[in-house]
Amino acid sequence: MMANMNLIRERVEMLRKWMGCQETALWALVIPTMDPHDSEYIAGHWQMREWLTGFTGSAGMAVVTQDDALLWTDSRYWLQAEEQLAGTPFRLMREGVDKDFRSWLNGQEVQAGRIGYFEDMMSRPLYEDLFADAESDMLIHLSSEALNPLWTDRPPMPHTQVELMPDALVGETAAQRIGRLLEYLELNGAEQIFLSDLSEICWLLNIRASDIPFNPYPLCFLMINVQGSHTLFIDRSRVPDEVGEQLQRFNIRMDSYANGLVLRCSTLQKAEETEDPIPFWRAIKNEKEQEGFRQSHILDGVAMVRFLSRLEGERVQGFRNSIWTELSVARLLEDLRRESKDFLDLSFETISAYGPHAATVHYEPTAETDVPLVPAPGQVGGDLLLLDSGAHYTFGTTDITRTICLGTPTEEERRVYTLVLRGHLKLMNMHFPEGTNGLQLDTAARMDMWRGGYDFGHGTGHGVGFRSGVHEGPLQIRKDKRYCTSLPFCSGQIVTDEPGIYLAGRFGVRIENQLLCQEAEQTDFGRFLCFECLTLCPYDRRLIDLSLLQPEEREWLNHYHRRVCETLLPLLSDEADRQWLQKATEPI
Amino acid sequence: MMANMNLIRERVEMLRKWMGCQETALWALVIPTMDPHDSEYIAGHWQMREWLTGFTGSAGMAVVTQDDALLWTDSRYWLQAEEQLAGTPFRLMREGVDKDFRSWLNGQEVQAGRIGYFEDMMSRPLYEDLFADAESDMLIHLSSEALNPLWTDRPPMPHTQVELMPDALVGETAAQRIGRLLEYLELNGAEQIFLSDLSEICWLLNIRASDIPFNPYPLCFLMINVQGSHTLFIDRSRVPDEVGEQLQRFNIRMDSYANGLVLRCSTLQKAEETEDPIPFWRAIKNEKEQEGFRQSHILDGVAMVRFLSRLEGERVQGFRNSIWTELSVARLLEDLRRESKDFLDLSFETISAYGPHAATVHYEPTAETDVPLVPAPGQVGGDLLLLDSGAHYTFGTTDITRTICLGTPTEEERRVYTLVLRGHLKLMNMHFPEGTNGLQLDTAARMDMWRGGYDFGHGTGHGVGFRSGVHEGPLQIRKDKRYCTSLPFCSGQIVTDEPGIYLAGRFGVRIENQLLCQEAEQTDFGRFLCFECLTLCPYDRRLIDLSLLQPEEREWLNHYHRRVCETLLPLLSDEADRQWLQKATEPI
Repeated sequence: MMANMNLIRERVEMLRKWMGCQETALWALVIPTMDPHDSEYIAGHWQMREWLTGFTGSAGMAVVTQDDALLWTDSRYWLQAEEQLAGTPFRLMREGVDKDFRSWLNGQEVQAGRIGYFEDMMSRPLYEDLFADAESDMLIHLSSEALNPLWTDRPPMPHTQVELMPDALVGETAAQRIGRLLEYLELNGAEQIFLSDLSEICWLLNIRASDIPFNPYPLCFLMINVQGSHTLFIDRSRVPDEVGEQLQRFNIRMDSYANGLVLRCSTLQKAEETEDPIPFWRAIKNEKEQEGFRQSHILDGVAMVRFLSRLEGERVQGFRNSIWTELSVARLLEDLRRESKDFLDLSFETISAYGPHAATVHYEPTAETDVPLVPAPGQVGGDLLLLDSGAHYTFGTTDITRTICLGTPTEEERRVYTLVLRGHLKLMNMHFPEGTNGLQLDTAARMDMWRGGYDFGHGTGHGVGFRSGVHEGPLQIRKDKRYCTSLPFCSGQIVTDEPGIYLAGRFGVRIENQLLCQEAEQTDFGRFLCFECLTLCPYDRRLIDLSLLQPEEREWLNHYHRRVCETLLPLLSDEADRQWLQKATEPI
Repeated sequence: MMANMNLIRERVEMLRKWMGCQETALWALVIPTMDPHDSEYIAGHWQMREWLTGFTGSAGMAVVTQDDALLWTDSRYWLQAEEQLAGTPFRLMREGVDKDFRSWLNGQEVQAGRIGYFEDMMSRPLYEDLFADAESDMLIHLSSEALNPLWTDRPPMPHTQVELMPDALVGETAAQRIGRLLEYLELNGAEQIFLSDLSEICWLLNIRASDIPFNPYPLCFLMINVQGSHTLFIDRSRVPDEVGEQLQRFNIRMDSYANGLVLRCSTLQKAEETEDPIPFWRAIKNEKEQEGFRQSHILDGVAMVRFLSRLEGERVQGFRNSIWTELSVARLLEDLRRESKDFLDLSFETISAYGPHAATVHYEPTAETDVPLVPAPGQVGGDLLLLDSGAHYTFGTTDITRTICLGTPTEEERRVYTLVLRGHLKLMNMHFPEGTNGLQLDTAARMDMWRGGYDFGHGTGHGVGFRSGVHEGPLQIRKDKRYCTSLPFCSGQIVTDEPGIYLAGRFGVRIENQLLCQEAEQTDFGRFLCFECLTLCPYDRRLIDLSLLQPEEREWLNHYHRRVCETLLPLLSDEADRQWLQKATEPI
């Protein structure tokens, strides 16, 4: 969807004309990257910022005034934004370096009542952040529908069929979950709660759909009333009869999505009165969900092992049999996952990054950037392939990263890999008292690389949804206080363990498993928790510098590899795959 | 100062009569354990709670009404309080178990204007905590002087001479420090700041005194004005001429302590407008202060080594030469420290705890509890001696804990000791990015013992003052969020590293060094910090289970012991001490 610069110029001019013709002429219009549900992945219907600016990054905010046009985005996207904005009226505002929106706005002379924003593309926290200094009568509330006459090729609303998750898979019926919520509301003296987060509604009602890739939700809103009559705001035509009947049994009537949107916008400026407990409940997986996750990871492990075995076969033969690129290996891995009858979708766009590409933390290969995997003959180093991928299965969601060497590693590459592995293993093998939070656990993953002068800028771990968003809040393992102290760890939570080291322009290493928090033991010193590792896939032993591993780390490694082999070997039929797995998991 | 139960009864009756005769008859009187400076150690002049209740613990709050008498204290003191309150009108309220003051107060029928409290024995946070639910016209503000007619043997105010710290020792003149403060106040648009914390005033003015043991401050208040004329509220007779002249040079005039107290009380109910920056500045020691700390630790290390060498000699001979008890070893250690001409005072009451006593975290031996150090012949276990001690020297303050085995250790004792040692060494050898806080570092000290099912309830580390309070805020290493995330680590800070494990009724282990935060290196990943270990004293190698130490931990241990030996050996003249040190620091 690359738009050329003339097209962007025309759109901005058109927009300025439109701004001038509103009932109250607008001095500025604010266009963030957001849908009415504050979703991680946004349907094309709300990709207004991309349409207007031509910038295709996943994060950014555009502001157009009568004589200026600005785009704020974060450091991941500065290079890309500079390229894509060149020749357009937009100038790049680098978040954290240039003035932020509020400082910029404070420096402008603005007459009252002249900043427009779209109520349906604004969350309350963002609203409060952007407009904290603005007079409320300066703000003009608009609906993004108002721009339809200009945005003539605006993609329609997604419209996939809603399906029910079988109770037997989920382990808790929607009736039980609604019951918990009603009890909570009564206990807190609240009359009702309005939900706009799609994953929360899906969790509560045990429904799913396929509106957008990766996040299997239907667009909807839900109002739950203590009185017992609830409303799901959704396009009825997407709700099959059996789903509708099920909803009726829960006293949920349906109303149009548009009415839900109106309700949402009317609550935008009011603070919520009751804290929404669903994110905290959702983080704790019940026995059935835990078992589903285990099964998903076995399927995922089989696909990963078959993939790695195949890749090793090709590597040994010098990649002569076909053209191997970042994109083609991602496709091969996807194809192998698809062979499972329980595969539903990828859980996010595969990160397949070779050589220097892997130093860009969230690199996703495109046709333009794709490179062949060709280890230089005789040359040492530069051949690391970082693969961060995952899938939704019928009964769970996976997220795994492995870094693989396709050539001969340098000493530095092995040192860096081993430091990442040490942190990864230390976190995975933590025992800790109930109440420990993600800021405390984070240290385990970083302390060894810190001693080597390395660090990484992203989080160490995030919660994972059950056949739902692969990045599920609020559980976090991070080195900053943001969120990760809000939810202490407890039994049943699932979190990723994904430290990394990235050397700009050279190479990158990340290793990721998914962990299930479990009760460990009760002693005189309290109740202790530990992690059960869900992910089943060998690490690349050629990248491990044994001299840097401490004996207890080596034991953890061997213990893990033994479990991987024992679990997956019986499920592999191809002799080459079986041999590869046995060799890859031999004790070190 | 144990008061018998009849005396306590008489005092309570006397107090109730006095309460009834006040201008407004009091229904209740609140008596916390506090002086007007919110000091850690409180002069006898303000030990009103102890006088009234007979309970000698360092923490607690008494409340007397016309028909009830209560004493709140924390779990450290429940046993002691029960014994000391038996037969008195006071009933024990266990903090965290029984109702707290506010809940108790809410359950009472109180008429307006009838709860008395002493303004000079109340901090603002405690005031807000205690009286958040109380109508302000219910509160009667009193001065503790009002109780003098009853408290006839009230100890007088301390009255030691004020002395100046030589600029050459401190590395920063009082003029410079006052200048920094004035600049800060101007920058923050503040006109003045009123200081009541004694250690802050001493830091700012480079003065000291000896009013109470351990904390070398004179009782005073200080008002700093941006206009440039400041006031030190202090009993003038304690200020020698040369100190007075020095103060004049800084435009500081003197006023009576009583006037400062009036000012403090009048500000008690007002929130402070400007944040006091001194605790944050004070935490960062300058080059001179750092050098002073190093020298103090060398003196302290010599005393410790001579002590341990002597103890080992006695041990080998079966402690036959004299009676060795918890108190006598504490005295011997103090005597050896006193041999240095730069010794000034202990920095806190020595914790000398043998056998099960060491399982009580803050056990301090008294004549009543003192036990002889008599390892049972042939018996294995139960002979650990925990010694937590420290001193003020002319140029710095020390705090060190060693746990020593006087008999033959059990496997469990060695395992526990080694787990504590591993955490202690891990923290000491951390490298970490600037901005890392005490909650993050805490994990390093606990992760190994957590894996063994052990933990400890106290903080892992605290800041240390420069010839000032041995517990200096706000720097903390803790496993709870309290304080320890408020001040990120930076170069020049000093913190203790003191993990422990305590098995109730059996034995306890704690190991403590003092660490100086230093710049480590700057890499592509940022600026890294590390710790220079100030404390110089061997660990008890007989308690180390080598099979539990990882190779890198063994290297850290050997490296530390080598440095201890290299630094201290040239300073030891006694051949037995020299031999003991060489043996104690041999590579493991």
